[in-house]
Amino acid sequence: IRQGMSEVVFCEGKTEQQVLKIFERMIEKGEVNIIGTRASKELYEYLKENLKGDIDYYEAARIVCAKRVEVKKNPKGHVAVVSAGTADLKVAEEAAIILEILGNNVKRVYDVGVAGIHRLFSHLDEIQSANVIVAVAGMEGALASVVAGLVSKPVIAVPTSVGYGANFKGLSALLTMLNSCANGVAVVNIDNGFGAAVVAHMINSLANGNL
Amino acid sequence: IRQGMSEVVFCEGKTEQQVLKIFERMIEKGEVNIIGTRASKELYEYLKENLKGDIDYYEAARIVCAKRVEVKKNPKGHVAVVSAGTADLKVAEEAAIILEILGNNVKRVYDVGVAGIHRLFSHLDEIQSANVIVAVAGMEGALASVVAGLVSKPVIAVPTSVGYGANFKGLSALLTMLNSCANGVAVVNIDNGFGAAVVAHMINSLANGNL
Amino acid sequence: IRQGMSEVVFCEGKTEQQVLKIFERMIEKGEVNIIGTRASKELYEYLKENLKGDIDYYEAARIVCAKRVEVKKNPKGHVAVVSAGTADLKVAEEAAIILEILGNNVKRVYDVGVAGIHRLFSHLDEIQSANVIVAVAGMEGALASVVAGLVSKPVIAVPTSVGYGANFKGLSALLTMLNSCANGVAVVNIDNGFGAAVVAHMINSLANGNL
Amino acid sequence: IRQGMSEVVFCEGKTEQQVLKIFERMIEKGEVNIIGTRASKELYEYLKENLKGDIDYYEAARIVCAKRVEVKKNPKGHVAVVSAGTADLKVAEEAAIILEILGNNVKRVYDVGVAGIHRLFSHLDEIQSANVIVAVAGMEGALASVVAGLVSKPVIAVPTSVGYGANFKGLSALLTMLNSCANGVAVVNIDNGFGAAVVAHMINSLANGNL
Amino acid sequence: IRQGMSEVVFCEGKTEQQVLKIFERMIEKGEVNIIGTRASKELYEYLKENLKGDIDYYEAARIVCAKRVEVKKNPKGHVAVVSAGTADLKVAEEAAIILEILGNNVKRVYDVGVAGIHRLFSHLDEIQSANVIVAVAGMEGALASVVAGLVSKPVIAVPTSVGYGANFKGLSALLTMLNSCANGVAVVNIDNGFGAAVVAHMINSLANGNL
Amino acid sequence: IRQGMSEVVFCEGKTEQQVLKIFERMIEKGEVNIIGTRASKELYEYLKENLKGDIDYYEAARIVCAKRVEVKKNPKGHVAVVSAGTADLKVAEEAAIILEILGNNVKRVYDVGVAGIHRLFSHLDEIQSANVIVAVAGMEGALASVVAGLVSKPVIAVPTSVGYGANFKGLSALLTMLNSCANGVAVVNIDNGFGAAVVAHMINSLANGNL
Amino acid sequence: IRQGMSEVVFCEGKTEQQVLKIFERMIEKGEVNIIGTRASKELYEYLKENLKGDIDYYEAARIVCAKRVEVKKNPKGHVAVVSAGTADLKVAEEAAIILEILGNNVKRVYDVGVAGIHRLFSHLDEIQSANVIVAVAGMEGALASVVAGLVSKPVIAVPTSVGYGANFKGLSALLTMLNSCANGVAVVNIDNGFGAAVVAHMINSLANGNL
Amino acid sequence: IRQGMSEVVFCEGKTEQQVLKIFERMIEKGEVNIIGTRASKELYEYLKENLKGDIDYYEAARIVCAKRVEVKKNPKGHVAVVSAGTADLKVAEEAAIILEILGNNVKRVYDVGVAGIHRLFSHLDEIQSANVIVAVAGMEGALASVVAGLVSKPVIAVPTSVGYGANFKGLSALLTMLNSCANGVAVVNIDNGFGAAVVAHMINSLANGNL
Ligand SMILES: Nc1ncnc2c1ncn2[C@@H]1O[C@H](COP(=O)(O)O)[C@@H](O)[C@H]1O
Ligand SMILES: Nc1ncnc2c1ncn2[C@@H]1O[C@H](COP(=O)(O)O)[C@@H](O)[C@H]1O
Ligand SMILES: Nc1ncnc2c1ncn2[C@@H]1O[C@H](COP(=O)(O)O)[C@@H](O)[C@H]1O
Ligand SMILES: Nc1ncnc2c1ncn2[C@@H]1O[C@H](COP(=O)(O)O)[C@@H](O)[C@H]1O
Ligand SMILES: [Mg+2]
Ligand SMILES: [Mg+2]
Ligand SMILES: [Mg+2]
Ligand SMILES: [Mg+2]
Ligand SMILES: [Mg+2]
Ligand SMILES: [Mg+2]
Ligand SMILES: [Mg+2]
Ligand SMILES: [Mg+2]
Repeated sequence: IRQGMSEVVFCEGKTEQQVLKIFERMIEKGEVNIIGTRASKELYEYLKENLKGDIDYYEAARIVCAKRVEVKKNPKGHVAVVSAGTADLKVAEEAAIILEILGNNVKRVYDVGVAGIHRLFSHLDEIQSANVIVAVAGMEGALASVVAGLVSKPVIAVPTSVGYGANFKGLSALLTMLNSCANGVAVVNIDNGFGAAVVAHMINSLANGNL
Repeated sequence: IRQGMSEVVFCEGKTEQQVLKIFERMIEKGEVNIIGTRASKELYEYLKENLKGDIDYYEAARIVCAKRVEVKKNPKGHVAVVSAGTADLKVAEEAAIILEILGNNVKRVYDVGVAGIHRLFSHLDEIQSANVIVAVAGMEGALASVVAGLVSKPVIAVPTSVGYGANFKGLSALLTMLNSCANGVAVVNIDNGFGAAVVAHMINSLANGNL
Repeated sequence: IRQGMSEVVFCEGKTEQQVLKIFERMIEKGEVNIIGTRASKELYEYLKENLKGDIDYYEAARIVCAKRVEVKKNPKGHVAVVSAGTADLKVAEEAAIILEILGNNVKRVYDVGVAGIHRLFSHLDEIQSANVIVAVAGMEGALASVVAGLVSKPVIAVPTSVGYGANFKGLSALLTMLNSCANGVAVVNIDNGFGAAVVAHMINSLANGNL
Repeated sequence: IRQGMSEVVFCEGKTEQQVLKIFERMIEKGEVNIIGTRASKELYEYLKENLKGDIDYYEAARIVCAKRVEVKKNPKGHVAVVSAGTADLKVAEEAAIILEILGNNVKRVYDVGVAGIHRLFSHLDEIQSANVIVAVAGMEGALASVVAGLVSKPVIAVPTSVGYGANFKGLSALLTMLNSCANGVAVVNIDNGFGAAVVAHMINSLANGNL
Repeated sequence: IRQGMSEVVFCEGKTEQQVLKIFERMIEKGEVNIIGTRASKELYEYLKENLKGDIDYYEAARIVCAKRVEVKKNPKGHVAVVSAGTADLKVAEEAAIILEILGNNVKRVYDVGVAGIHRLFSHLDEIQSANVIVAVAGMEGALASVVAGLVSKPVIAVPTSVGYGANFKGLSALLTMLNSCANGVAVVNIDNGFGAAVVAHMINSLANGNL
Repeated sequence: IRQGMSEVVFCEGKTEQQVLKIFERMIEKGEVNIIGTRASKELYEYLKENLKGDIDYYEAARIVCAKRVEVKKNPKGHVAVVSAGTADLKVAEEAAIILEILGNNVKRVYDVGVAGIHRLFSHLDEIQSANVIVAVAGMEGALASVVAGLVSKPVIAVPTSVGYGANFKGLSALLTMLNSCANGVAVVNIDNGFGAAVVAHMINSLANGNL
Repeated sequence: IRQGMSEVVFCEGKTEQQVLKIFERMIEKGEVNIIGTRASKELYEYLKENLKGDIDYYEAARIVCAKRVEVKKNPKGHVAVVSAGTADLKVAEEAAIILEILGNNVKRVYDVGVAGIHRLFSHLDEIQSANVIVAVAGMEGALASVVAGLVSKPVIAVPTSVGYGANFKGLSALLTMLNSCANGVAVVNIDNGFGAAVVAHMINSLANGNL
Repeated sequence: IRQGMSEVVFCEGKTEQQVLKIFERMIEKGEVNIIGTRASKELYEYLKENLKGDIDYYEAARIVCAKRVEVKKNPKGHVAVVSAGTADLKVAEEAAIILEILGNNVKRVYDVGVAGIHRLFSHLDEIQSANVIVAVAGMEGALASVVAGLVSKPVIAVPTSVGYGANFKGLSALLTMLNSCANGVAVVNIDNGFGAAVVAHMINSLANGNL
């Protein structure tokens, strides 16, 4: 992205003033679209009031987006975003919204953790027909392996920090995903829905002849 | 066990002479049956030659057993021993043989790792009808969660040290199993097939009115 | 549970509105009884006001329960819940209350840590006569080993995060329990009183011919 | 792979007899091509003597391959395999050979670690024109970030266990790659050249309309 | 320093009263200049009001300084302080300000992380002509290696705690820097801009014939 | 010791020639008694042949000792050395022999691990009447807590590396002992029977008015 | 203690009401003196108002003490409490006050960290003449080794959580102390001034013929 | 170095043939002097026989050196290499020999660990008069802090993997050195005598006006 046509700002740990200034500087430099991740509703409202032009907010994903030009679409096929538990939702949505902003069709398959594996099987079609799958799971993170065992497309796995005790803030899910005995799994950092979306977007663009 | 009617010796790291002496002393003390785990074939041959009375060897399980009296059987139901990959076999067999020596019916369901989940589903009956399941898996250890999600019986999970890199000698599978989001999973030490068998034996005995 | 007749919600990290909505949806779906763990008193009061029908609160256990139908009892025998220090109480109570809601007789043996081992010995009867023991301990977690050395029933060990410094938020007790040299110990996640209760309930049900 | 048209055997820790048996069973089942990774020269010679039909050996990559049918080629574009130091070569070759066996054009750009960054820049063309890049590095693993900062294609990063001391057998490079501040990086397990190749093959196949 | 002509106080975790008392006691003892690191603006204002004589505040660096005498300058050459991301700024400024207070010429080269490596190359002159470089980076910390590969002067690397997930509060950058395959890198503690500045000051003083 | 009247050499990792030379040099310098720990039988035989004067070997403790003068005895009371399993014996003996060489009465209470706690209780007298107790245990290391709960004298705890899996080479027992909820426990390094003996010797000497 | 004549309550994490109730119950049971550690000033004031009889507060040590009877003194010799930095003071004071309450003479030697080792040497007499030394240090924790190298008495080392970054909340000082190459060092948990005091009190009592 | 006038080869893990080939290729490319670190005596003898021209071996340092041209000397001042125990010698010698090959005067101050701190003090002159100090220590690694507290020059600290148990292969010394509360310490990787030598050489060259 940074190296492409949108610029992305990691808002966590920055003041509202700092984020505003970064957005303004980028718009001046002629950046096409500017996305802010880990953005609170308060930040959004501050930007809306102070920034010239439109700005959108995706609450569940904690994303703000100042869209200035149209992006190139990836019309062929879709990216499936699969997630395990309700607490993993905000990471899954971070991935899904970034993917949509970048022009991809997204199919969400949420709450299909391995404890209720039948729910996963009832959505197999949407998953198997995707060009690439983003698999988001915390706790023991087994979802990525199960999904990868069922498809022949690349699976970008996102461990989340959801859990407690021997979860060690996501370490458990991270190790699970790195050790997947199913083929076709590559992993990004804990809670990094954004990073997974970028890789998945690149893959879907390649599949669409767009990269 | 130790506190019950069989005595179990952990042979790894002991010399043949030491193991022999321990076996002899126990037989003298009137111990009923003596089991040795982590026993090499060489150790078995040494014991066979030097110990009074019969001794059996279970090669895949690395177990020697000097059976002296009959054990109380658990005739009702069975224990399912489920394992993921071929490299997990020796831990699974350690559990299975201990269970059989202690008088339990065992159904082995091997090589049903999540990368080929259909193999697991084709053995669902044997797993769901068990009184208790021992689930053995290395790498990412997702098998325990998947199995526990499909049954309503206790699952005793055994992480194995099978894997490399970010597996950290079984830590990955251990954390996965401790963080299982499926209900009914309890965990023993890495590679501890014996320990899982003892717990499963106790549970099956309770189900048989034998404890 | 999830797979059985009660549904359990992990309330920590969810808003009051979210928990209410989940409870309502489950009641609609005809779920029999709905349990919420890690529930604050505030959450309970919010639910009491807004949910149709009765709801109970178990303060020490931090559990809310919307009971709708009677559960199948386990009349034979009991489950012993043993705990080490006063700070371990809330995890022990989480286990005990879940066990009682699921229909088990529970005997509590609290504050019997190994620093005052005579207290443990004065309750040996209640522990040895149980079908299964839940052993809850933080700090060094030695209680599980000591108990398992004294009984021939399965011990479900729950490490707690009680302690400081080299305790590493429960890691110390967790490792202690996984390495127990006494037989018959299986372990659940740090502070997971709920998980231990589910396994113990399954075992007691098997002993009662109820599973 | 497993789920596709080739079957892959992880040979490390298996006896020659076990590997032979697995190869024979797979050929019987009609598997098209069988690949063995982490195969010693001795194993290769044993298989050559005992297995019906041809078998190839790629020494630097430690791979044996019993090719039985032609694979579908990915004629458009190539995969770049980039590696840092000479000690990383065997992991890089594992990736490169797997990619070639699966029908991809591979461009090797070796020994371009960040300590001599000019060597990397003199091969920028081959890297930037690839559909996907496999970046292999041990020690501090900075190569993946540097490469990802220079291209707009997905980078599959493989940390290696090359290093000593605070390298902790590859942990250092693994964490570096997971924390990459450059976009488009996804990571596989330490030393897992094979796993990276499978993901890269899937991506290149999507770019070729082959998946 | 402590052993030299300035005394430095680590203010974090001390009350305003405690810091004041320490400053007063040192001034009495005839200490020349007193520096306080990790000082909030509130602390500065408290000291300004209550301490006899002047006191300066460097907000971005979180440093207070009660300058009482002139320091010996290092007129020849400069120290380059290089940093990766905006979030690393406060650590970089801690280093830069300490260096300036101690009498060194400092050139700041900020926001030159490896994701946008061209920015680094456009400042190569300032970096290569320095006597010593302080390289500050969080996330994966690759900057230190890249810089050391481009210069023949010592690089004092400061990992920062900037990042999340598998960053483990700076561990990732710390390991990266310790494992640098480029020559001439030595490392200080996570976020220890002050410590790096002291080492760099000593080196620059040696180059100036001042130590 | 080093600072006192005996000199101790850690023999592991040194060649026979190096150890010989160190012993000779010390004897020349007039050191009274020279002890070598972690000494193999081969090393002992080499020293016996090549060193002037007598040398003793304690096989179970892996200790060589070139005694040259009499040590001051601690006639009052004794030190109890308590150990858990047979595999802990060599560390326990290292402690016991060092204590005896330094002039202390030692009572050995071995194989009293918590899995068979009655064995511990049948030796309570010897333990409670000691001036100081050295408690040696691997696996989960619970012995130190149990012993400290039963006595009012200092307990010097020695974790051993006995165990496997989640034992992490003694880390489990080490953490257990550091987190002991019983009073009066202080801990030395994993497998450091020697270090515990020195501390216990100092304490017993103080109790005897000898230090 | 617990097993002796005073009872000690760990107040952190308990409500004022809970602590009051524990104190009252103990006084009823006829406990002689009751000590509360990790007690805030607020807690002290609450107890003072609500508890029958006198209660003292030691602010720097965060200790409350309801003294009811006189303790047996250790008149011969003293215990030295040595500490490194100002931030270690509260742990050092916890040790010193507990020692004094238990009847020991205490000599405090504070702020003698190894960065200013001359300060340590100017107090050598007080340290070398003690019966036992409590050495308290955070950061790198080198003080314990340096002190133990200078005395022939037991050193009870207390690592503190003072530090940041690669200190990992006291792990650094803990490991340093466990690995001390000086003889006579035994270690307690991070920040456990209380635990060190109990061991030191036992040793001093033995030296006084009081145990 | 790599970037300078000598090329350094890390020989560990390379075959004799591979090292020979690298040396030959470098000599052809006109590299001035070629150094091999971690070289066994066997490797040296192989190179001596097969390489054109002279080659030297430094056994204690495990270094081979094919010197072809004279290096620029650093005539002013010296580098002090200070080490703690005899087992640290090979790392200290690696540093010392590299420094000498690069043209520096080196003063070795060995076996001055903190357990016998008087030995350190008797060499204070050689240490305080150096331009830069390389401090090598394993176990608890306290030497670096003690030295840095006594001098006002930069200290390059090298933790070694000497130790056992809670040493965790050098982690203990590494953390100690990173957390040093003395000023002027910068750290290199565990056992990296070479890396420390390069940094120290750069600093000494700056002090000599040679860089
Ligand atoms: N949620 C996120 N997780 C990880 N990286 C992100 C995230 N959001 C933005 N980034 C990256 O962080 C960079 C911006 O960081 P900064 O300069 O601190 O705003 C962008 O180039 C993105 O690649
Ligand atoms: N205290 C608890 N600890 C661990 N797991 C729990 C706990 N309470 C509920 N659960 C599990 O978490 C699941 C619900 O998670 P959620 O969907 O996030 O509410 C249930 O199916 C339970 O199995
Ligand atoms: N500061 C402290 N650090 C460690 N242990 C303590 C401390 N204060 C009290 N204790 C121990 O904790 C026990 C009381 O714990 P509790 O029952 O939770 O109040 C006492 O028996 C003491 O041995
Ligand atoms: N003992 C050593 N420790 C760390 N790095 C070294 C050592 N010896 C050589 N090196 C570095 O390793 C590089 C050579 O690595 P290689 O290409 O694997 O031979 C050289 O440029 C040196 O900077
Ligand atoms: Mg797949
Ligand atoms: Mg289930
Ligand atoms: Mg038992
Ligand atoms: Mg890129
Ligand atoms: Mg350089
Ligand atoms: Mg006691
Ligand atoms: Mg001493
Ligand atoms: Mg200094």
